[in-house]
Amino acid sequence: MSAAEEMTGEDTPWAEVTPDAARRLLVAAVEAFAERGYQATTTRDIAGRAGMSPAALYIHYKTKEELLHRISRIGHDKALEILEAAANGPGTAAERLADAVRSFVRWHAGRRTTARVVQYELDALSAEHRAEIVELRRKSDAAVRRIINEGVAAGEFDVPDVPGTTLAVLSLCIDVARWFSTEGRRTPDEVGALYADLVLRMVSARK
Amino acid sequence: MSAAEEMTGEDTPWAEVTPDAARRLLVAAVEAFAERGYQATTTRDIAGRAGMSPAALYIHYKTKEELLHRISRIGHDKALEILEAAANGPGTAAERLADAVRSFVRWHAGRRTTARVVQYELDALSAEHRAEIVELRRKSDAAVRRIINEGVAAGEFDVPDVPGTTLAVLSLCIDVARWFSTEGRRTPDEVGALYADLVLRMVSARK
Repeated sequence: MSAAEEMTGEDTPWAEVTPDAARRLLVAAVEAFAERGYQATTTRDIAGRAGMSPAALYIHYKTKEELLHRISRIGHDKALEILEAAANGPGTAAERLADAVRSFVRWHAGRRTTARVVQYELDALSAEHRAEIVELRRKSDAAVRRIINEGVAAGEFDVPDVPGTTLAVLSLCIDVARWFSTEGRRTPDEVGALYADLVLRMVSARK
Repeated sequence: MSAAEEMTGEDTPWAEVTPDAARRLLVAAVEAFAERGYQATTTRDIAGRAGMSPAALYIHYKTKEELLHRISRIGHDKALEILEAAANGPGTAAERLADAVRSFVRWHAGRRTTARVVQYELDALSAEHRAEIVELRRKSDAAVRRIINEGVAAGEFDVPDVPGTTLAVLSLCIDVARWFSTEGRRTPDEVGALYADLVLRMVSARK
C-alpha cells in the first residue's frame, strides 16, 4: 500500500477536530448539508442533530458559514495531501498517476457525503474563504499536472493537451462522489483499479 | 453537423412547455433550485421569480415536486435523445462514440444550470417519479454501451470492462455541468473535442 493509499483508509474521520463537541457538530453539519442542502439547513437543525442546544453550537462556531468553511478546508487539505503523496511517491509516472487515481477515487467513494458538500457548496463560502479554497484546488491540479508532465518528458506518456487531460482526470475521480453507492456492483477499490486503467489509457501510457 | 449535435443547439429551451405561464414558472424553478437547492426553495419563491402569485402557480403545478419532476423528465428525455441519435447515426463506432461525447458535453456545458438540478436533486423526487427517471438513465447508459460493444465486436476498440467504461464515459460528460464556466478558458465545443479524443483513448480506438 502506497503512502497516498494509506491516507484514504481513515479510521477516524474528523479526528483533527477537537474538542469532541466541535467534532460532533461538524459531523452533524456534513449530514444536514448533504441531505437538505446548505441553504435549507439552520444552525438550530445542526445543533439538534448533534443533541446540543443552539447556544452550545455558538461556543464552537459563530456562523453556519464557519462550519461549511471548516468542512471544505479539511476536505480540500485531505485531497491535496493524497495527490501530493502520489506525485512525490516512488516509481514511474505511470505508477504515480495510477496511485493518485486509485487513492482519489477511494476517498471520493468512501467519503462521498463529505465530498458532495465540499464539491457542490463552494458558492456558499464567503469571498475570502472561497479564495483560500480555490488556491488549494489549484495546488491539487498542479500535483496531477506535474505527474503527467513528467511522464511526457520521460517519453512514458503521449498527451497533446496536458491541462485539459489533468482537468478530465480530476473530474472523473470527483464525480465518483455523485454516483457511487455502497449498494452498487463495485467496491471503491474496484472503481479505483478500473479508473487507474482508464486514465493510463487517456495518457497513452506505454505498456 | 450530426443529428445528435443539432439537438444540442437549442434555440428555445423548454419550448415543449406550454402555455407561456407554465414555461416561465419552470424556468424560475430551475434557477431557484440551482441557486438555493430544492429544499430551501418554496413555491412562493418560484411564483415571485416568475412575477406571478402563488395561486397562479397552483393552476399549473400542484406541488414543488411536480415542478422538479417536469424539469428532470425533460432533461433526461433530452439526454436520451442525444445519446440515441449518436448511437443510431452513420459511421464507425469511433465516429459515433465521438459524436455522443461531443453532443453530451455540449449539452452539459450549455445547459449546466438545468443539468445540475437534474443530476443533484434525484433524491427529492417521489418514489414513483424516481423509478421513471432511473429507467430513462438506464436507457441512456444502454445507448452508449451499445456503441462500445459494437466497436469491440468490429475490432475497432479494445475494452476489458464495457459496463465500467460506459459508466466512466457518461460520468466524465455529466461532471462538465459542475465545473464548466463561461469565464473559463475553453468553449463547450473545445471541451467536447478534447473529451471525444480522451474517450477514444479510453477505448483504445484504432487510429
